[in-house]
Amino acid sequence: MSIYDTIIKNGIICTASDTFKSDIGIKDGKISTLAESIDSSKGNIVIDAEEAYITPGGIDAHVHLREPMELFGVIADDFESGTRSAVAGGTTTIIAFASQNSESNDSPEDLARAVKLCISDAMSQKLYCDFALHLILYKVNKEIIDEQFQKLYEEVGVTSVKMYMTYPKLQLRDYDLMNVMYTARKNGITTMLHAENGDMIEWMIEKLEEQGKTDPYYHAVSRPSLIEGEATGRAIVISQSLDNPVLFVHVSAPSAINCIRKAQTKGLKIFAETCPQYCFLEAEDLRCIHSHDPFEGSKYVCSPPPREGKDDQDSVWKGLQNGTFTIVSSDHCPTLYGGEDGKRAAFKNGHNGEFKWIPNGIPGVETRMPLMFGNAVNGTKLSLERFVELHSTNPAKLYGLYPKKGSILPGISDADLVVWYPEGKYTGPSTISNNMLNHDCDYTPFEGYGINNWPRYTLVKGKVVYKEGEIINDNSGIGSYVKREKSKLAVPNNEWVSELRPKYLIDK
Amino acid sequence: MSIYDTIIKNGIICTASDTFKSDIGIKDGKISTLAESIDSSKGNIVIDAEEAYITPGGIDAHVHLREPMELFGVIADDFESGTRSAVAGGTTTIIAFASQNSESNDSPEDLARAVKLCISDAMSQKLYCDFALHLILYKVNKEIIDEQFQKLYEEVGVTSVKMYMTYPKLQLRDYDLMNVMYTARKNGITTMLHAENGDMIEWMIEKLEEQGKTDPYYHAVSRPSLIEGEATGRAIVISQSLDNPVLFVHVSAPSAINCIRKAQTKGLKIFAETCPQYCFLEAEDLRCIHSHDPFEGSKYVCSPPPREGKDDQDSVWKGLQNGTFTIVSSDHCPTLYGGEDGKRAAFKNGHNGEFKWIPNGIPGVETRMPLMFGNAVNGTKLSLERFVELHSTNPAKLYGLYPKKGSILPGISDADLVVWYPEGKYTGPSTISNNMLNHDCDYTPFEGYGINNWPRYTLVKGKVVYKEGEIINDNSGIGSYVKREKSKLAVPNNEWVSELRPKYLIDK
Amino acid sequence: MSIYDTIIKNGIICTASDTFKSDIGIKDGKISTLAESIDSSKGNIVIDAEEAYITPGGIDAHVHLREPMELFGVIADDFESGTRSAVAGGTTTIIAFASQNSESNDSPEDLARAVKLCISDAMSQKLYCDFALHLILYKVNKEIIDEQFQKLYEEVGVTSVKMYMTYPKLQLRDYDLMNVMYTARKNGITTMLHAENGDMIEWMIEKLEEQGKTDPYYHAVSRPSLIEGEATGRAIVISQSLDNPVLFVHVSAPSAINCIRKAQTKGLKIFAETCPQYCFLEAEDLRCIHSHDPFEGSKYVCSPPPREGKDDQDSVWKGLQNGTFTIVSSDHCPTLYGGEDGKRAAFKNGHNGEFKWIPNGIPGVETRMPLMFGNAVNGTKLSLERFVELHSTNPAKLYGLYPKKGSILPGISDADLVVWYPEGKYTGPSTISNNMLNHDCDYTPFEGYGINNWPRYTLVKGKVVYKEGEIINDNSGIGSYVKREKSKLAVPNNEWVSELRPKYLIDK
Amino acid sequence: MSIYDTIIKNGIICTASDTFKSDIGIKDGKISTLAESIDSSKGNIVIDAEEAYITPGGIDAHVHLREPMELFGVIADDFESGTRSAVAGGTTTIIAFASQNSESNDSPEDLARAVKLCISDAMSQKLYCDFALHLILYKVNKEIIDEQFQKLYEEVGVTSVKMYMTYPKLQLRDYDLMNVMYTARKNGITTMLHAENGDMIEWMIEKLEEQGKTDPYYHAVSRPSLIEGEATGRAIVISQSLDNPVLFVHVSAPSAINCIRKAQTKGLKIFAETCPQYCFLEAEDLRCIHSHDPFEGSKYVCSPPPREGKDDQDSVWKGLQNGTFTIVSSDHCPTLYGGEDGKRAAFKNGHNGEFKWIPNGIPGVETRMPLMFGNAVNGTKLSLERFVELHSTNPAKLYGLYPKKGSILPGISDADLVVWYPEGKYTGPSTISNNMLNHDCDYTPFEGYGINNWPRYTLVKGKVVYKEGEIINDNSGIGSYVKREKSKLAVPNNEWVSELRPKYLIDK
Repeated sequence: MSIYDTIIKNGIICTASDTFKSDIGIKDGKISTLAESIDSSKGNIVIDAEEAYITPGGIDAHVHLREPMELFGVIADDFESGTRSAVAGGTTTIIAFASQNSESNDSPEDLARAVKLCISDAMSQKLYCDFALHLILYKVNKEIIDEQFQKLYEEVGVTSVKMYMTYPKLQLRDYDLMNVMYTARKNGITTMLHAENGDMIEWMIEKLEEQGKTDPYYHAVSRPSLIEGEATGRAIVISQSLDNPVLFVHVSAPSAINCIRKAQTKGLKIFAETCPQYCFLEAEDLRCIHSHDPFEGSKYVCSPPPREGKDDQDSVWKGLQNGTFTIVSSDHCPTLYGGEDGKRAAFKNGHNGEFKWIPNGIPGVETRMPLMFGNAVNGTKLSLERFVELHSTNPAKLYGLYPKKGSILPGISDADLVVWYPEGKYTGPSTISNNMLNHDCDYTPFEGYGINNWPRYTLVKGKVVYKEGEIINDNSGIGSYVKREKSKLAVPNNEWVSELRPKYLIDK
Repeated sequence: MSIYDTIIKNGIICTASDTFKSDIGIKDGKISTLAESIDSSKGNIVIDAEEAYITPGGIDAHVHLREPMELFGVIADDFESGTRSAVAGGTTTIIAFASQNSESNDSPEDLARAVKLCISDAMSQKLYCDFALHLILYKVNKEIIDEQFQKLYEEVGVTSVKMYMTYPKLQLRDYDLMNVMYTARKNGITTMLHAENGDMIEWMIEKLEEQGKTDPYYHAVSRPSLIEGEATGRAIVISQSLDNPVLFVHVSAPSAINCIRKAQTKGLKIFAETCPQYCFLEAEDLRCIHSHDPFEGSKYVCSPPPREGKDDQDSVWKGLQNGTFTIVSSDHCPTLYGGEDGKRAAFKNGHNGEFKWIPNGIPGVETRMPLMFGNAVNGTKLSLERFVELHSTNPAKLYGLYPKKGSILPGISDADLVVWYPEGKYTGPSTISNNMLNHDCDYTPFEGYGINNWPRYTLVKGKVVYKEGEIINDNSGIGSYVKREKSKLAVPNNEWVSELRPKYLIDK
Repeated sequence: MSIYDTIIKNGIICTASDTFKSDIGIKDGKISTLAESIDSSKGNIVIDAEEAYITPGGIDAHVHLREPMELFGVIADDFESGTRSAVAGGTTTIIAFASQNSESNDSPEDLARAVKLCISDAMSQKLYCDFALHLILYKVNKEIIDEQFQKLYEEVGVTSVKMYMTYPKLQLRDYDLMNVMYTARKNGITTMLHAENGDMIEWMIEKLEEQGKTDPYYHAVSRPSLIEGEATGRAIVISQSLDNPVLFVHVSAPSAINCIRKAQTKGLKIFAETCPQYCFLEAEDLRCIHSHDPFEGSKYVCSPPPREGKDDQDSVWKGLQNGTFTIVSSDHCPTLYGGEDGKRAAFKNGHNGEFKWIPNGIPGVETRMPLMFGNAVNGTKLSLERFVELHSTNPAKLYGLYPKKGSILPGISDADLVVWYPEGKYTGPSTISNNMLNHDCDYTPFEGYGINNWPRYTLVKGKVVYKEGEIINDNSGIGSYVKREKSKLAVPNNEWVSELRPKYLIDK
Repeated sequence: MSIYDTIIKNGIICTASDTFKSDIGIKDGKISTLAESIDSSKGNIVIDAEEAYITPGGIDAHVHLREPMELFGVIADDFESGTRSAVAGGTTTIIAFASQNSESNDSPEDLARAVKLCISDAMSQKLYCDFALHLILYKVNKEIIDEQFQKLYEEVGVTSVKMYMTYPKLQLRDYDLMNVMYTARKNGITTMLHAENGDMIEWMIEKLEEQGKTDPYYHAVSRPSLIEGEATGRAIVISQSLDNPVLFVHVSAPSAINCIRKAQTKGLKIFAETCPQYCFLEAEDLRCIHSHDPFEGSKYVCSPPPREGKDDQDSVWKGLQNGTFTIVSSDHCPTLYGGEDGKRAAFKNGHNGEFKWIPNGIPGVETRMPLMFGNAVNGTKLSLERFVELHSTNPAKLYGLYPKKGSILPGISDADLVVWYPEGKYTGPSTISNNMLNHDCDYTPFEGYGINNWPRYTLVKGKVVYKEGEIINDNSGIGSYVKREKSKLAVPNNEWVSELRPKYLIDK
């Protein structure tokens, strides 16, 4: 007699624009009905939200997980632990990275093949939620990318590529960026950039080493804000020259935020991501002055590094408020603090823990949603709608997962949902500690940070995978690979914006 | 057996963030259910949207209608013709103006009383849709406004006041603006500003008159963009000094848009409205060079005037795209071109049609939604979601009408809806002409402008009031006065934005 | 047989562009010859500069002296003590103020007459150096100023007028500013503006008083930087609308400096003055926390007030370095700290020393040159050439005293010179104290500030009036009134800057 | 009985700050005396300037002359014709380029040696005026430059190095720029940059070639303004990171000018040069639409290319006016239009005149001063003092030639002077034509441009080398190599500008 598999009653639904009390009927893993009241008898399972907020499940669009060939030290999480950690923090879809640069990939020019290798590796694991993939480009061959980009979309549903302006092994020349952007634009592929000036950083690192400044803290000194601002500004000019949209990943520096804001003011299609570490951490954390071991600062080594305290954090918060940022991701890239393959790889091969040998990256896929929900929304820095937009809806729209993911739309959206605790009813820990987390990393840089809510139920495609602090293993293995459509947001400008069109070069 | 008064099937619902195919069940004038499929048998009335877009009804937050005492010549529309024209153009709520400055108001200090006079006047007419009221302040008495502002909200549900920085009779000093903003902030009243420097304009008009430059075109010359930019910048400083949010009405000048954008970049709570006239018209229109009668330029006389062609219009479009503008209104303020009481009042009292005697204002409540839907959305300048946000959702949030108005939320929202024509099925006129409009004005400045869609059905509180080109008079009289809540958007900054808080002056 | 009245040998001459070792021959009060070597036998008097720097005498273009009717409390210096103090500090020409607003002036519309009254009053005193006059306008009558401005120049050699945007008795409306600027432009009169928003300040003062915040420190709170920035931005728009050059006096706020810089970047003819108090003092000085008497803060009460510490001071220094500022003046306006007519006037008429009753103004004509020479030039913040440009050459060029004053040009320039001490030979006090100064004020706000040089000889028109710490009274009475030419700098833009020309309004 | 070799009577001397009537006494090749009147009997030679302006001889700090190994095609002028052409146009000192990149230089790491080779080559020719040298770096070896930079100054008096951010053979990486700037700062060497993004240009050229767009005009298309702005912005960040002053050569793009201006506003030590071609020429010139031969556009091929018409030229003029630009040079780099080794080298080696094979560069050393004097000074765009500052005094100060060169200072300055024609007395050609010029190039891009004055006498070290249209060969061979001091302008910031100092990296 039931017509819904699950009914959630008495929740307050939040979308990127609206907040409203409504019951939800779920059927076949999808949202079926929103109504002021749905009769409980019509559902097999009924969850009483008790007037709590219900948001779309989070989409974390920047997650590094262990892959056949590691780019930056050994990543502590594989797809199983990564997705487990994700759902425990309210994230129901992750976008991880396939890399052209893979040992097991003997034909790096075949981009779709690199993706397929990654998919098959991931699918061999037990996945707690869905995943999609970006592709990291490290070697650009002018002749083939056009055809390869078509295949990326058609064969494996990958519609974004990531490029690095830093790291000796990955850094592309501006010439290559032009090349990729030109082809990406033609094929509707979204270009993501890690914008730091690798040349300048290389020089800074050498100079610091010459001076014996090798403690973890100097990692932050070696990559100052200006250098991120420079690369961001440069990439915007390249983007503007080609009328090609760009998404800057993990933006942290006020100078970069200013560049991005100005580009948006001019009407350019520039998009930006930031991460909780740039809202909460700061360069001083790398000193770890409360520890007897200066190497403990390595727990905060990521790139870009945490910036210079409250003023810089406020720049990020303002960008989140005023629309400059499009999405919030975690840049989850965990490496163990203990053991030999994580941060302490800096002591291998005759090294002495110099910052330049410390693998970059910190964990964060599980803490992203609760940290921001508690400190931004409840701290009144962000409206609830903007929280949903940044953490769910925009990532879905930007990366071609929408409307299947990222919102709560009858008939279309997967029933990927987070039911939070009702106001005042959250009784879990009031601060984050690593032992409450579900990743495979042995620390969290957010240890001790306050929280005042946490996902009570996480539903993936209609199934509860996390409930009141526990992973529900019966529903593990629910995740699978999601092919993506082209971006709804990162679309080149139209003809009417005539002054933004480069002359002669762009075939329409 | 039916449980819905009306069902709309097969529509594509658009909200400020989402677009999705869904059926809609309406009951007791409100949205009751959104579901992938609602059985037709459950509705008394069933409308087949035929895969057309369904948007929330428009909210036009800037509408001048005839009132006991006229501010700017005789306004051609009263509340009846004004709301009739509104619904014919897809607008289902208007916010008009009560004025402290009313002949029949013998105690202008009693602000709530001024509003009550206006409500009772309006309610004596047949209203095709709901209305709310802003209050125009023209005389500021420091002692009383605190108490009066409380009453405004509590007694008559008015939560916004409008002030003028121009027009000799209405212009307030900066001292008065400080006074009002200080009190408004304490009482959660939103301050709206017409920002043009009245002093400078007064001088410009005198100088032009001295030189015999009195044709309608010189109206535009007398109020250059710079002067709007100046007043906007000044008001932002006042606003910043008091941490008081401000909404700038009818913003038209690139210099003003830049000021506003910069304020938002800094994190200030600055909001902006623009109007279709600044997207489509230009100063040259006031020359009316195709007419034998130079006075015909008076049809385009409004303040601020249309600006200098495509570049200035593009500034407005970019502001609409990139989030600088919060809402689009019409600034509907129609005065007849024929007859003696409209534009030709400039020939009365011994005048010879000099521009300074031409009543300001143009009609636009009916054309706002179709013009923008056709040229912005279909012209790909704005996404459909952004169109809804600008024309419906944000006006509702900004002015305390949300969530009753401005979105499509089960259990909460009034069923104020526009069902557009399905793509390719619109067969009405391809250009606007005044004879298709329902206002009481004898011209439209948008005569001849292209359109490619039009509201097919307009529903107000669940009733169809306009259908396929016809007003449905059976449902006239459905409108009434709506008390408003405090703004969801125009809220002062919180303490964490410490650098924005003025020292010593603001009691929290 | 001598051909020179005076020869200065072995000096290093500094002009606004050049520094070079050269002897100077003086004849009839003027520079006659610059040569690598002049035979000592050819001079009646020979001064050996001993390789010290020789700069043009300072021009202090902003000096308030006692006049028949006082604007701001009783000014402690008259023309005699004022010029005596000037030459003791290396200043050889002052520009003081005549005011339209004078009790003894029974026809304030007759501007030239107001100047003549002031000249005759000054000339009745013993003057140690030359002086010129600006005119303060406080009441603008549209009909007459055109003719009056012509007379100002032709009859009394006054080519600049000063206007206030603040102070209830003096504040002009924007309409009046337009009026004056329009006429000034036609007549080549330079417009000077005191830019603070008087309306906002009035409100701030009232609000502070309501809260009982009346200590001298709150003077600074009542006039925040933003408010100076606002008025500056507004006046620039007015200036731009009329293509009329403006000189902003005593600029102190970063926001004002930014506005000015941006205007100059656009090519507008905007000029700016700052004063040593904005380089060295700060708002905290008004707290006088080291004194038992909070009223001692009144010693620092001037408008604009000293700003918020090092960052704000650095903005001023940067503006001095990069060319934003055109001149440095003292805004000398001394009122006694002791006695009843100075700062303590705030205790008269039933007042209790509330800041709003404290006469504004501080002394500074004597300390301007030594403070800046020692801390800027020797502190390497300014080049010596830029020091000369800011303190002598530009004031002369800007205000029509050049080339008679402001440089060291054979055949033309008055022999107004400062011979400093050779490097390492200055043996005077190392800090400023009031007892070494020659003004009639009983304190200096720069008490205790370090100095490392001081004028050794000050020559006015070839005569030594100050030598090694002593006024040379034999040469007193040397000063007289100087008629000025039109500005060499404050000239409207030419036609080629077409986009800066307002349409229709300006007759060329 | 005479005491002066030469006396110039009745001239109006112009320096960077002053204009004044004065006689000049010259002795031993140097300025000896400035005086209101010098007795004619005291001079061997007496020149009557007839109330004409006398300026310091021009210093052209950017002149490419033929060298053993050519960088960009065969340069038409050697040091003899180059200096001859210079003096005929009022330029009395040139700074040419030695290159590390020289075929005859078998040890490019020995920088001083590269300079010596160049000096000896030049000195073998008959020189009409003095010259100095910059050094072009194309290959940076981290280990040696420190020592090499010391020697450059000490052994050969070279205190500036030029680097390229474009041209495949010359382009340095950002890493190299960091390296050179770091060392240059320590050694007081001024860094000059050609700022265009070579990577982007390389891609643009390839793309244009693919599309068959190879006419000379596409040279301009391939190097758009944005690309110059990008490189300029990037170099400023590098400069700021190291607190190292930079001079940008031949700045042409509004976006670059904006970057530079903003840096100066912040207090950074950024300097800029522009050239007459960016004041007068435009991209359309490369189309040569009035010629039957599209290749004639090659006459205007230089890098950066002339920009987009009047708006872009106005940006340059504003920068000249408001102080953004420090110097004006010619970037003289002539290649013949006729013959095989100049522009038509683009037809050699199987090429078909494609723009990428056209040697870059245009002649200009002779036209620089007259073009700017006539069109800027007399066109009232620049004051005479600013003209002298830009063309003589600042180049001397910036590049360590001051006070020997660049001004008119008794006892110190070389008597390098230009006596112009008195107003109204110039009777030469009213437009420029190549046959009046003294270079060895067969065209001038300024053919037909109006002039209204020209140097009447050019004096080099007291000798007349050019007089009323004729080279005075008796005085040829007067020129020699000038060792330079360190820059007076390009000095790193001092400690007080604390926020500009990079942390940790710079040893003071």
